[in-house]
Amino acid sequence: MDKYRLKFNDEFNKYIQLYAHIKSLIDKNQIEDGEKLPSIRELADFLKLNKVTIINAYKKLQAEGYANQKIGSGTYAKRRDSIRGFKKSYSITFKRLSSGRLSDVIDFTGETTSADFFPVADLKAVLNDVLDRDGAEALIYQDVLGYEKLRERINEKFWDNKLDFDDILIVSGAQQGIDIVSKALINVNDNIIVEKPTYSGALSVFKSRKANIFEVPIEKDGVDLEALKKILKKNKIKCFYFMSYFQNPSTVSYSNYKKEELLKLAEEHDFYIIEDDYLSELIYDESTKYSSMKSYDKNDRVIYIKSFSKIFLPGIRIGYLVCPRIFKDSVQNSKVNTDISTSSLMQRALEMYMEREYWIEHIKLLNVKYKERYDFMKTEIQNKLNESVEFNPPGGGLHFYLKLSDRIQINSIELFYKLREKGVLITPGVMFYKHSNEGERYFKIGFSQTDCDKIRKGIDIISSVLSEEAKVYGVPNN
Amino acid sequence: MDKYRLKFNDEFNKYIQLYAHIKSLIDKNQIEDGEKLPSIRELADFLKLNKVTIINAYKKLQAEGYANQKIGSGTYAKRRDSIRGFKKSYSITFKRLSSGRLSDVIDFTGETTSADFFPVADLKAVLNDVLDRDGAEALIYQDVLGYEKLRERINEKFWDNKLDFDDILIVSGAQQGIDIVSKALINVNDNIIVEKPTYSGALSVFKSRKANIFEVPIEKDGVDLEALKKILKKNKIKCFYFMSYFQNPSTVSYSNYKKEELLKLAEEHDFYIIEDDYLSELIYDESTKYSSMKSYDKNDRVIYIKSFSKIFLPGIRIGYLVCPRIFKDSVQNSKVNTDISTSSLMQRALEMYMEREYWIEHIKLLNVKYKERYDFMKTEIQNKLNESVEFNPPGGGLHFYLKLSDRIQINSIELFYKLREKGVLITPGVMFYKHSNEGERYFKIGFSQTDCDKIRKGIDIISSVLSEEAKVYGVPNN
Repeated sequence: MDKYRLKFNDEFNKYIQLYAHIKSLIDKNQIEDGEKLPSIRELADFLKLNKVTIINAYKKLQAEGYANQKIGSGTYAKRRDSIRGFKKSYSITFKRLSSGRLSDVIDFTGETTSADFFPVADLKAVLNDVLDRDGAEALIYQDVLGYEKLRERINEKFWDNKLDFDDILIVSGAQQGIDIVSKALINVNDNIIVEKPTYSGALSVFKSRKANIFEVPIEKDGVDLEALKKILKKNKIKCFYFMSYFQNPSTVSYSNYKKEELLKLAEEHDFYIIEDDYLSELIYDESTKYSSMKSYDKNDRVIYIKSFSKIFLPGIRIGYLVCPRIFKDSVQNSKVNTDISTSSLMQRALEMYMEREYWIEHIKLLNVKYKERYDFMKTEIQNKLNESVEFNPPGGGLHFYLKLSDRIQINSIELFYKLREKGVLITPGVMFYKHSNEGERYFKIGFSQTDCDKIRKGIDIISSVLSEEAKVYGVPNN
Repeated sequence: MDKYRLKFNDEFNKYIQLYAHIKSLIDKNQIEDGEKLPSIRELADFLKLNKVTIINAYKKLQAEGYANQKIGSGTYAKRRDSIRGFKKSYSITFKRLSSGRLSDVIDFTGETTSADFFPVADLKAVLNDVLDRDGAEALIYQDVLGYEKLRERINEKFWDNKLDFDDILIVSGAQQGIDIVSKALINVNDNIIVEKPTYSGALSVFKSRKANIFEVPIEKDGVDLEALKKILKKNKIKCFYFMSYFQNPSTVSYSNYKKEELLKLAEEHDFYIIEDDYLSELIYDESTKYSSMKSYDKNDRVIYIKSFSKIFLPGIRIGYLVCPRIFKDSVQNSKVNTDISTSSLMQRALEMYMEREYWIEHIKLLNVKYKERYDFMKTEIQNKLNESVEFNPPGGGLHFYLKLSDRIQINSIELFYKLREKGVLITPGVMFYKHSNEGERYFKIGFSQTDCDKIRKGIDIISSVLSEEAKVYGVPNN
């Protein structure tokens, strides 16, 4: 009962203050989903308030979706529904956004590079040259593994020919890579480990395979190894899914030490590692040298998944994976069952684009352009959100992961709604946890869809909403 | 014991004849997988043969993979392994084929149209025009549902604007349609019904969802409704998967009567119908009028899946599905988890290709070209394989499904191996059944990858192998 105690101020109606207090308890999980709230009489006595004040506070909680009244039984806290409701509302927002119906917003939710910098003329040139060279041949199904020359080219340009090109499988984007690897490897009730927080698109896939998902917190240089070892001691683990650079959403990159330790653990405990290398082309910090975990992998423990959205085109859906020999057949079958094969013409176009080294110029350009935005946004956050958020600059990638400081009493879902009203879109942290109520103190903002001008405007709006909210819903210490 | 009895002829070694007889019993499942064969002494006594003859026959059975000897226990029939072995060998053959390493074979296994007839110039024109018109816009992610104008165009050209274009979801080919619908609808242990035989790519997906699969035999005008009703009486069914035209592999098309009856049953027993409309553009029989089951669907019971491999390009991987409203959200989420979205540039190209009505000319051309091959192959089969196979001409599509007549003592797996040696590829019926040993008396031959000259040569080779085999392994009546 003690948690319901609060000091009232004179600025607002008492029922509003009580409502805000209870809502904040529900948000922070200090009142659990489904927990019965005190009866009206009980709470009125405890807080020395008129019953009408309690009734009005409870009514407002109901109206806002934070409580349910069950006739003859009482009032119950409602939590998860609001998150489910939020997820629905979030996804509708993005359907509108992607269909161009929200074109004037400041979109900080972008997950990938923008096509703006892409040299359309280069693409036209390779498409035409491929069609002239190969004719109808370019339009038929490929080898299940993908266009052979493209696999050779990947081996040459990214792996110094150290792989066997028949170990490379072309997929329709990294998301498909995660999906087909899961279908090949993960069965009902298999134990798998993910980082906490992690990429929501991967979480959904693992949930859909009905796997048991263990989450291990992420630290500044990668996953918490001690927490991981505790799980490994007690459970037979099938695989560990992680992102080696600029982890989504935490923006953490793995130290080489942690990469090597993880490989040792995989060998010792006989599990496999899915490395999602989704953004390593964009390293702005010159002291960081790129090396994938796959490149350390002597015992064939790593399934490496790579997207080409960055070096090629975001909307074109081509990526590849490199898979331990032991899974080769099952992963190939899984690919066939998923979509037979990846668009053949685009594979040939990509091969030629790589052969002509257009991609190197393109990546250089992206690094210049995005580093500019990165630096600008970092400074803006430091200057304008300093008192409202905490964060670690990632040194690369396309986004920042911000933690709301304690003085901010709204959670990131509320922040999402309030910002959306003002034309700014952010991604609340709740998207990245197995239990959605975690991550409410976090939100992600990315700069791939916004230039410096929009970044400044957007951060200004976030800043003004946060300082406003810190004042209005500020609940005095109790 | 009686089944082991046989009359010997003088033409071959007795142990060879005994071997062939036992092998044929195993193939026809009259001796089951794992069944213990009679002891050497028993069988020698029963057939009045020297023990050495039995030993040699058993040795040959072992050598050919039809039996296992367990020390101190006896000899056991081996069946499924040979089919598994075959499936592996079949898939390796096609990897070689698709990578161009088997270019001089006569390929009767083609599942889809060839790109040979496709006007590459039209594709070049639309790609260039789309890139000129839309620039970088053409290269970014689309609406989750797919490019809006393409969905409008599909509604206009194929549905007389009777659908809501927001009920259409663009997918990366029909196989992906089956996969994402399964992920959205089918959970572990859900009951689903398929036709027997059915498309192997769908079977694999349903198996991977750990569904309970019921097979219902197919008749000349669609699935056997009485057999279906028996299953519906005893089991709660989630969905029924079928192909409305030129069913793969049986080539059966559904009568309108059966379509309507199935819709009634779906309403009565509360299940959903997945209609895989994969080949209805190629109807050669002028009395056949096209009407999808979806067009009869008043109660929103049908999930309609359509491939564009035929009207557009086989290797381009674009299709669409129309889904009951009740599943719309879950199917969309499943699409996002599978590959985010389908290649955006190709969707725009397809839209323009449809707008310019190029596809109508293309379909007309395909109908002329394929009808020619269809008629030619039909006549060749009737003339040259008359005594070896039975079949019903489908009146459309790209293949024939042939049943080996009783005088042919080899099964279609053996036929596959023997024909492959001679450079002809067929698809044995075992690929299309839940229990692979069924379908051994059937094989499928398609003409999409072979012109009339190759069809003639291929049928000649099949004819010679079949008559040879009928003679060599002919087991006299007993």
